Amino acid sequence: MNYYTKGIFDMNTPKGILIVFSGFSGSGKGTVMKELINRYSDYYALSISATTRNPREGEENGREYFFKTREEFEKMIENNELIEYASYVENYYGTPKAYVEEQLKAGKDVILEIEIQGALKVKEMFPDTLFMFVTPPSAEELKRRLIGRGTESIEVVEARLSRAFEESLGMEAYDYLIVNDTVDACVEEVHSIIQNEHSKIFRNQEFINRIREELKGFSKDNMK
Amino acid sequence: MNYYTKGIFDMNTPKGILIVFSGFSGSGKGTVMKELINRYSDYYALSISATTRNPREGEENGREYFFKTREEFEKMIENNELIEYASYVENYYGTPKAYVEEQLKAGKDVILEIEIQGALKVKEMFPDTLFMFVTPPSAEELKRRLIGRGTESIEVVEARLSRAFEESLGMEAYDYLIVNDTVDACVEEVHSIIQNEHSKIFRNQEFINRIREELKGFSKDNMK
Repeated sequence: MNYYTKGIFDMNTPKGILIVFSGFSGSGKGTVMKELINRYSDYYALSISATTRNPREGEENGREYFFKTREEFEKMIENNELIEYASYVENYYGTPKAYVEEQLKAGKDVILEIEIQGALKVKEMFPDTLFMFVTPPSAEELKRRLIGRGTESIEVVEARLSRAFEESLGMEAYDYLIVNDTVDACVEEVHSIIQNEHSKIFRNQEFINRIREELKGFSKDNMK
Repeated sequence: MNYYTKGIFDMNTPKGILIVFSGFSGSGKGTVMKELINRYSDYYALSISATTRNPREGEENGREYFFKTREEFEKMIENNELIEYASYVENYYGTPKAYVEEQLKAGKDVILEIEIQGALKVKEMFPDTLFMFVTPPSAEELKRRLIGRGTESIEVVEARLSRAFEESLGMEAYDYLIVNDTVDACVEEVHSIIQNEHSKIFRNQEFINRIREELKGFSKDNMK
C-alpha cells in the first residue's frame, strides 16, 4: 500500500527532535535519563558536552565529554559552534552544535541535560525544542532525598534547596512537568511524551502537503 | 507522604481538558471515538450536540442529541449558551456550553467531535483546548475506504473527496496529526496524547506555585 509516513520518517526531512531535560538537583533526572537511554537506545542520543576541565580517571574524550583547551573552547564560542555554554568554577561547559545536528539528521531524538540558563538559550536558537522539567512530588520529598543521600553536608543540602527555589522561578519556560515519583513510571512518561511529540502538526508539514496535493488531484478529476 | 498531585487532581482546579477531534469523512474518526470512550469510560465524556432536526427512531433526548425547537435553539444562540453552532440542510446543530462545563468540572476530559469551522470557533473561545486531526495514511487510502463502504454513489464519494481537500486546508490549526492505520493503535495513541496533555506546564500552575512556596520557605530557614 502506498502509505505516507509521519515525522521522523518523512523522506525529505528525516530528523529527530531536540529535547531539553532539566530539573532540580535531587529530582533524580540523571537516573531517569540513564534508564531512558538504556531502555530505548535506538530512539535517543544524549548530547555530549564540551568542557575545559581536565578528564577524571576513566573518562574518555567523546564519551563523557569532549575535552578542550581554553583556546579551543573560546574558538568554538567565536565560531558559533556551541548551542549554549556557561562557566562554572573557572571552567567552561557547553553543548557543541555539530554532534547534536549529526544525531538529529541520523533520525535520533537528542536529549540535552542542561540547566535553566542554558535551556533559555536553546529556546532562542531552536524554538521547536521540546522542554521538560523534572521534579520530585514535593519540596519536602526533595529535601528528604537530598538529606537521604547522606553524602552531603547540611550546608550543601541547604544551598541546593536555595538553588532549587531559584530554578523553580523558570519552570514556566518549559512545556511539560514530569513528576518523578518512581523511576520506572517516570521513564515511561518521558518516552511517551517524546514519541507523541512526533505527531505534532508542525512536525508533519510534509505529510500534510502530500495528502493535500493528492486530494487536490482528486478534486480536479471531479471537474472533468 | 505529603505529595502534591498534578493537573486534574489539583484540589482548587479540578477540571478536565477540552478536546476537539476532527477528521476527514472516511478517516474512521467515529469508530476511533466510540472505541476510546468504550475502553476508557472513566476518563472521557463525549459532548452531546443540540439540534433542531427531528429525533429519528431510537434516538433519545440527552443521549444522541439535545432536541430543541427552532425558537429554543435561537434563544441559546442569543444567550451565548453554545460553544459553536452551524446550520446544515435547514437545521441547526451546536455544542451546548453547560453540559461541557459540567463534565469538565467533574474531572472528565470532554471530547467534541466537530468540523473545522466549529473547531476554529472553539479555539477562539477556549484557547487551551487540545486539537486533534484524524486522517487515513494517504489520500489513496481515503478514496479506497470511501468506495469500499459500498453504500455511497460515486457522486457522493467524489463530493466527500472534494470536501476533504477543503478540510485539509485547515489542518495547520490543529495540534496533533493522528494517522488512523489500525483502529486499535489509533485509540491508544489518542489516549496517550490526551493523558500526556495533563502534564503540560500551563495545566499545572498550582503544583508549581506550591513547590515554589515551599522551597521559598526552606530558603528563608537558611537565612536564620
